[in-house]
Amino acid sequence: MAKRYAVIMAGGKGERFWPASRLARPKHLLPIVGDKPMLAQTVERLGGSLPVENVIVITNIEQLEGVRAVCPMLPAENVVAEPVGRDTAAAVGLAMLLVKQRDPEASLAMLPADAFIQDADSFQTALDIAFQAAETSPSLVTIGIQPTEPATGYGYIHRGPVERVIGNRDIFGVRQFKEKPDLETAKCYLQNGEYFWNAGMFVWKVSTISEALAEFTPALKAGLDDIESGMASGQDLAELLDELYPKLEKISVDFAVMEKAKNVLTLAATFDWDDVGAWPAIERHLPADRAGNVKQGGAKFLNCSSNIVVSGDDHFVALIGVEDLIVVHVDDATLVCKKDQAQNIKQMVKSLGEEEALRKLL
Amino acid sequence: MAKRYAVIMAGGKGERFWPASRLARPKHLLPIVGDKPMLAQTVERLGGSLPVENVIVITNIEQLEGVRAVCPMLPAENVVAEPVGRDTAAAVGLAMLLVKQRDPEASLAMLPADAFIQDADSFQTALDIAFQAAETSPSLVTIGIQPTEPATGYGYIHRGPVERVIGNRDIFGVRQFKEKPDLETAKCYLQNGEYFWNAGMFVWKVSTISEALAEFTPALKAGLDDIESGMASGQDLAELLDELYPKLEKISVDFAVMEKAKNVLTLAATFDWDDVGAWPAIERHLPADRAGNVKQGGAKFLNCSSNIVVSGDDHFVALIGVEDLIVVHVDDATLVCKKDQAQNIKQMVKSLGEEEALRKLL
Repeated sequence: MAKRYAVIMAGGKGERFWPASRLARPKHLLPIVGDKPMLAQTVERLGGSLPVENVIVITNIEQLEGVRAVCPMLPAENVVAEPVGRDTAAAVGLAMLLVKQRDPEASLAMLPADAFIQDADSFQTALDIAFQAAETSPSLVTIGIQPTEPATGYGYIHRGPVERVIGNRDIFGVRQFKEKPDLETAKCYLQNGEYFWNAGMFVWKVSTISEALAEFTPALKAGLDDIESGMASGQDLAELLDELYPKLEKISVDFAVMEKAKNVLTLAATFDWDDVGAWPAIERHLPADRAGNVKQGGAKFLNCSSNIVVSGDDHFVALIGVEDLIVVHVDDATLVCKKDQAQNIKQMVKSLGEEEALRKLL
Repeated sequence: MAKRYAVIMAGGKGERFWPASRLARPKHLLPIVGDKPMLAQTVERLGGSLPVENVIVITNIEQLEGVRAVCPMLPAENVVAEPVGRDTAAAVGLAMLLVKQRDPEASLAMLPADAFIQDADSFQTALDIAFQAAETSPSLVTIGIQPTEPATGYGYIHRGPVERVIGNRDIFGVRQFKEKPDLETAKCYLQNGEYFWNAGMFVWKVSTISEALAEFTPALKAGLDDIESGMASGQDLAELLDELYPKLEKISVDFAVMEKAKNVLTLAATFDWDDVGAWPAIERHLPADRAGNVKQGGAKFLNCSSNIVVSGDDHFVALIGVEDLIVVHVDDATLVCKKDQAQNIKQMVKSLGEEEALRKLL
């Protein structure tokens, strides 16, 4: 069996989880749902599938220290920081190089750091099947999520007919990758039944993704080749990336590769999955009282319904006569936000950045 | 001129200002409005009228330390604690004894600790006129507040015809003291024009209030006489009160005396007055943004209207998409309360007292 790697993408600013999340402490470094930081959960979930030295995390400079802190089990050289963000295709290329350096025959899974998945066994089974599919034919394999609602916040994968069966699981061809749809379109996808959510989980061999990048994004691939040469000549990786990474073409892997490649396969996740995209999502993972209020930490509700409270264990929040609120308390800041305005948290965070005295809250 | 004293009543649990107020740190020990604790403002406001040694504060055991801390200017013996609360008539009796011990010929003003009055000159003028009225005839003088709205939270004073004029100010007789009315009745009072709010500000000679207590509440007066005898024999005041105060009749001064006495006079306050009875009241004393939001401390509003935020300078509160909320942050607790449910803060505080782990928040 060829060697398998997982590369976890741990970037993202996590503004949607302010004030708990900050620039240097984004969502994946916080225990938003579950008892550990989301990234630590993601690393641990791979425990049954891969040895820890085959798990690599790509993050950014601001979060490097935080990532090392929540992933003490990872070898130091397995945590790599992009000096600047160059979108997902560049990150996919960097992941490919990091694995190729260790074993050019290997295959790798690309995984987001911050999805919440409880059924680790099912996850590991799906990952194993995806690896098998990628190892036994030169294909770009993605694990799709069966939609449960007409979500407009995800891209969709329109699957084709069954192309293979591995371990009793259908492996589908892919008709098309779809960008985030409007609500009407999302409803059609849901009803059609042939659409999965694109959760950003990909599995491929080093050689397969390398060829796909060369075919569909030759400029990016040329930039990656320069980095690869530097690595081969023993240059310090951080210095090399500082110099060459900013020059890479900035494009998403969906747009650059997945929407164009013909050799894409997909299988359906049978595990639970929640990307917990913003504060309202945590409600699904906390026990509610009769009036639909949920809490993490100390809180009491009087004449209240459908509120979400997140406070530390050392801070108590009392709610009286309010509904549909998100209340989040941390040491230096408190958020009180109507649930249906959670998308405006980003705007609030932006406005903090515009005032010198408030920049410490970012 | 006979000697004049002021006795400030600084009891009250201040539950309505939770979480800022606590059992040992009630409203009058906090700078709810203005830059000093309400009690300190009340003491300072008397500065032009009385020497500081003629200002006495009656509080309770729990708040004794806090009162001494915010009133360092007062002689230690001028801060006296009731061992238990026995309603206002007993407190009036104790005030009378404390002044009588110093000067049996004196007159005294009874004042609440926590009213917000900015026009100190007008206040001192009114107080001087009330003292003159009380000193020149054996009468129970009260300073009434001209109502500005049909408030149901105050008792009312139905004034009679002008009985005297002192310093160009009308001193009225009193037809009747009225308990807190319902809204319809309050509207009638407001329209009638002969009704003042009863702000609990009384002025009388020691001999006048002593005789009134003897006439209308002889049992209470007998208990007070026992305390007086003990004081005369040099017993320690605290020990004396511990022993005898709990035995005093428990009744309000309005009900026991003011509603029955014939020799009651009243004059209208010309100073501003706000008893700042609960969180919604502080709105009147803070500058509002265009959408009617007010704040004390760090806060920002996005798509918000008519909110009140009170936070420390070291804590920032962000509100998004909410209206008519009171948000109060202190170190160990945060309150989020719909304005029109502020009366339920007491119930929340009560429920905290029912849980061992939350009792520290009282």
